[in-house]
Amino acid sequence: MDVGALNALGYEDFMNIFGNIVEKCPLVAAAVWSKRPFANVSALEAAFYEFIDALPDSGKEGILRCHPDLAGRDLQCGTLTPESREEQARAGLDALSADEASLIAQLNQDYKRRFEFPFIICAKMNDKATILRQLLERVDNDRAEESARGIEEVKKICHLRLQALKLHKL
Amino acid sequence: MDVGALNALGYEDFMNIFGNIVEKCPLVAAAVWSKRPFANVSALEAAFYEFIDALPDSGKEGILRCHPDLAGRDLQCGTLTPESREEQARAGLDALSADEASLIAQLNQDYKRRFEFPFIICAKMNDKATILRQLLERVDNDRAEESARGIEEVKKICHLRLQALKLHKL
Repeated sequence: MDVGALNALGYEDFMNIFGNIVEKCPLVAAAVWSKRPFANVSALEAAFYEFIDALPDSGKEGILRCHPDLAGRDLQCGTLTPESREEQARAGLDALSADEASLIAQLNQDYKRRFEFPFIICAKMNDKATILRQLLERVDNDRAEESARGIEEVKKICHLRLQALKLHKL
Repeated sequence: MDVGALNALGYEDFMNIFGNIVEKCPLVAAAVWSKRPFANVSALEAAFYEFIDALPDSGKEGILRCHPDLAGRDLQCGTLTPESREEQARAGLDALSADEASLIAQLNQDYKRRFEFPFIICAKMNDKATILRQLLERVDNDRAEESARGIEEVKKICHLRLQALKLHKL
C-alpha cells in the first residue's frame, strides 16, 4: 500500500485496518481519520500519539483500562483480540506454569488495586522474566508516574502494530 | 441501586452497565470511572458530558463515526448494539417501506460524503417523519455546526440510556 492508497481508504476500510491500533479503543482511530491526508505512515502514527497525548488524565487512564490483563482471563478464555493474543504469546505468557500464572495474577491484582488501571507493558519487547520484574518494580511508583509509563507502553504497542501491517515502506 | 452501590461497583460491573452509554466508545466510560465517587446520577451524567466536551474536534467527530447509520446496514444485518436496535425500532426505522429505506440510505450517504461523519439524531425523541426532515435540512449546515449538533444528539442519547437504566432515583 502506498501513501496514496492509504489516503484513499474509505472509512470502513480504514477502521478495519487501524481500528485496533489502540487496543479496544476504536474511538482513537475514528478520530485520527479526521487528520487525513497523511504525508506518510509516520504522520499517521504521530496522529495517533497526538490524539492520545491530548486526552485528559482520565482519558489516558481510560485507554489503559481498555487493555486486557497480561496472562489474564481473556488469554485463558480465548477472548483476547488477535493482536493481543499474538503479543502475549510472543512473550511466552500463553505457556506459564501454574505457579507463574498464579503469581502474575496476584501481581496484576495488586497493581490494579493500587492504581485503578491494569499494568501495561509492550509484551513483544519483553519476555516473561522482564515482565515479572517490571510488575514487581512498577507497583511501587506513584499513580501519575504509572499512568505516564503505561501510555508510553501503549505507544510502543501501537508502533509495533503499525509495523506489523507492513506499511513501513510509506 | 443507590449512590453507594453505584460508587461501590467494580470496574467490570461498571463497564457492563455503562460501557455503551456512548455508542461503541467504551473508552468514554472507562475514563469516567476515574471520576468516582459520584455525588448522584446527575454527576455521573455530567462526567460523561465533561469528557466528551474536552475532546478535540477530531475526537468529537470520532464519537459521531462510532455511531451506526440510522436504518443502515447494521439494522438490516442485525448487528446493532441492543441499545441502538431498541432506539431505531422506537422511531419506526425497522419497519420502513422499500422506498423509504432507499431514500434514507441515499440521504445518509449524501450527509456522510459532505461531513465525513454519519447523521446522528436521538431516534427516541423523533419519529420517521422528523428524522427524514432533519436529514434533508441538516445536510445544508456547515461541518462545525453539524459536529456540534451531532454531539448534542449524542448527549440526548446518553441521557435516555442512563434513564433507561432506572438509576434516576439516585
